[in-house]
Amino acid sequence: MSAPTTEVGTRSTPAGAGLAELYAQVQQFYAAHFHLLDSGDAHAWAETFTEDGWFWPQVLPEPVRGRAALRAGVLRTREKLAAANEQHRHWHGMVHVQPVDERTVAVRCYAQIFAIPAGGPARLHLHCVCEDVLVREGDEWKVRQRKVVRDDLPPRAF
Amino acid sequence: MSAPTTEVGTRSTPAGAGLAELYAQVQQFYAAHFHLLDSGDAHAWAETFTEDGWFWPQVLPEPVRGRAALRAGVLRTREKLAAANEQHRHWHGMVHVQPVDERTVAVRCYAQIFAIPAGGPARLHLHCVCEDVLVREGDEWKVRQRKVVRDDLPPRAF
Amino acid sequence: MSAPTTEVGTRSTPAGAGLAELYAQVQQFYAAHFHLLDSGDAHAWAETFTEDGWFWPQVLPEPVRGRAALRAGVLRTREKLAAANEQHRHWHGMVHVQPVDERTVAVRCYAQIFAIPAGGPARLHLHCVCEDVLVREGDEWKVRQRKVVRDDLPPRAF
Repeated sequence: MSAPTTEVGTRSTPAGAGLAELYAQVQQFYAAHFHLLDSGDAHAWAETFTEDGWFWPQVLPEPVRGRAALRAGVLRTREKLAAANEQHRHWHGMVHVQPVDERTVAVRCYAQIFAIPAGGPARLHLHCVCEDVLVREGDEWKVRQRKVVRDDLPPRAF
Repeated sequence: MSAPTTEVGTRSTPAGAGLAELYAQVQQFYAAHFHLLDSGDAHAWAETFTEDGWFWPQVLPEPVRGRAALRAGVLRTREKLAAANEQHRHWHGMVHVQPVDERTVAVRCYAQIFAIPAGGPARLHLHCVCEDVLVREGDEWKVRQRKVVRDDLPPRAF
Repeated sequence: MSAPTTEVGTRSTPAGAGLAELYAQVQQFYAAHFHLLDSGDAHAWAETFTEDGWFWPQVLPEPVRGRAALRAGVLRTREKLAAANEQHRHWHGMVHVQPVDERTVAVRCYAQIFAIPAGGPARLHLHCVCEDVLVREGDEWKVRQRKVVRDDLPPRAF
């Protein structure tokens, strides 16, 4: 409950020059980020968060904080999926970006999570809303904070 | 049937400089536009249409025209969804943009509509094809016209 | 098995200037490309491949090579879909682009294929991972090679 947060959605959206580059970078980042997650590459995925980055799925009382915890979460999920003989795939879309400062962007987007059991058929597993704060480190974006709300559950305060 | 229309899909696509900015703006616009709709914010959503903007779903004999009618439609849907205890989510994707003039763009894209009942599971509710004409007012894009064809229904002439 | 290939995923991703234009062009290309395929326009779709372009779905022992073979594939699918009274829709998303040289880009992305029978409901038919090599001819992008892996089937070597 005490995680330091950057407010998402409180600034107006720049429609002018410069949106394109930021927007493309965020889309490209999400592609790489979820290709890593869905391939089960716990180490490389955790590296796409800042060192103190956190991920707060609605079902947890506290965020998963820091790369060691993020890696452990991927490894647990990888075991569960292997046991179930399922592949998961994450889509981020309907991406809305709001620059906060030179190296920080707040993103609100939708998330589809698909589950594909061996032999099929693929199914939509969850639909979520994701609020991220991404920061620039060198020439890479990293997740500093992520809150994910599930549309099948009652809303909760973070 | 007599709605004034801009033809979509009749001009060749510029692959050169300048696509990026327009393309990002259209994607960002759709994100904001559907985040508003899916949150049931009838007033703010209607403001993302021009004053005489219209939305023509295939199942209606005439377009829904003007912000008052657009607001009323959202409010009716909001009541139905509340009664059904469902959340809807709209995704626009496979976006193809064609500049018409300095402040007008014709868009053809696909639309997924998901329905997520409380307790789940999420399901794909409809798949549609959407043809929009967007116009620039100040530094914002607005919908001037929208035609939506449902893939589960026989085609119709608009 | 002997198709000449360009390796996908081996170069680091440019986060700097220039990503936006390429990224938008690839998204716009996929939109046009799959609008053509899903409308059953075999001829125009085949033209979005290079003359020697190929498409290798995981279930085939060899790629479908060249425009005549690509057209024939679309026509067969069109007949099957007409007989089943179904519409298919292809979404490419989570697009990751890697420039190879001035006129070549390697793309890794996810693919959703929806099937919508007349009368509904729409369903997710397949989830796949797609690796494309696109090349620039004049001011248009074309597919030179495409490998598609289905998430419901065991992995195979191409």
